Amino acid sequence: MRVSELSTDTGVPVATIKYYLREGLLPEGERTAPTQASYAQAHVQRLRVIRALVESGVSIAEVRKVLDALDDPPASPHDLLGAAHAAVTPTSESDIDTAAAEQLVAQLGWQPGLCDDAVVAGVARALKGIAQAGFEIPDPVMAAYLESVLLIARAEIAGVPTDSPEAAVRYVVLGSVLVEPLLLALRRVAEQVASAERFSGPGAPPD
Amino acid sequence: MRVSELSTDTGVPVATIKYYLREGLLPEGERTAPTQASYAQAHVQRLRVIRALVESGVSIAEVRKVLDALDDPPASPHDLLGAAHAAVTPTSESDIDTAAAEQLVAQLGWQPGLCDDAVVAGVARALKGIAQAGFEIPDPVMAAYLESVLLIARAEIAGVPTDSPEAAVRYVVLGSVLVEPLLLALRRVAEQVASAERFSGPGAPPD
Repeated sequence: MRVSELSTDTGVPVATIKYYLREGLLPEGERTAPTQASYAQAHVQRLRVIRALVESGVSIAEVRKVLDALDDPPASPHDLLGAAHAAVTPTSESDIDTAAAEQLVAQLGWQPGLCDDAVVAGVARALKGIAQAGFEIPDPVMAAYLESVLLIARAEIAGVPTDSPEAAVRYVVLGSVLVEPLLLALRRVAEQVASAERFSGPGAPPD
Repeated sequence: MRVSELSTDTGVPVATIKYYLREGLLPEGERTAPTQASYAQAHVQRLRVIRALVESGVSIAEVRKVLDALDDPPASPHDLLGAAHAAVTPTSESDIDTAAAEQLVAQLGWQPGLCDDAVVAGVARALKGIAQAGFEIPDPVMAAYLESVLLIARAEIAGVPTDSPEAAVRYVVLGSVLVEPLLLALRRVAEQVASAERFSGPGAPPD
């Protein structure tokens, strides 16, 4: 198909497609004439992945790293997950103190050497932001966070398909990144439901 | 204290403090001379909140809305939570289809009229991004997401302090926004732990 059809099929403007081509996120189409190229179904699929990542707030540089992990996957699903996380985790300031974070994630079964350091540094950064604002998380609430993320992670990892490496790659990389906005949005709905229950906010609307 | 001390106390550069003053995020200090103002402990606290929000990726416009909710809180904690969520939820495109999202959040106890529409639209947008990338969430994984966010929300809302309105406001507004990076970071650690368990990735390092 031509670039115009690729645009119609995916809803991505031609100028944006050309930008992704220049950035090397989307491979060149097959040349059919000096100024024309033909695109295949693989381009449609790739473009949809790029759009989904960009619309989830992933930067172009991070999208490139996620695509690299998809194109040239590490041998084991565990390393793949590390690559996916590394792609979307900002490089940590070297001066961040990870002691409190390590103590916290030890409750998840974390041990030194088990994960990418950047992931633990992400926990440390989040804790620092909370402390700087003078906010304290009550113990029962923190316990609920730990219990919940374990529940989530176990279900997710149990669901990693092992029938084909491609399927495992897609599941791990996209599931890790694309699910984040969903979890945050679901938490907000659940908070409003729980808040209505406790503080008798607006109930069902009148018939 | 002078602006230079305010900067030393909070680690925020003077130029940034002046930017927040111009943007109206930080109230003017008390004038002590035509070109000098004096800042109080309240400024230190406010500046820490602003920094924590900015470093959590909240935009200046959103920070302003969160501060407005802190300064002029709605009467009930339930409305306050709505205000906090509205401040950090992008205005939804009007054309987003929320039917699938409504069906999903009904499993959380959601009913029409119970929450801010933007929050349900946030779920719809997240589901759209996932679908556009051709990604499917297996049913047991989605069930784990729903169970987890309910667990989280119930613990959080049970922890809302009711002894003072100020404490409730801080807890709801900051807890809602500042905890997001923590939850995502904890999920990544938990995923790597669960992945190491399933795929026997690196275990404990050698002694």
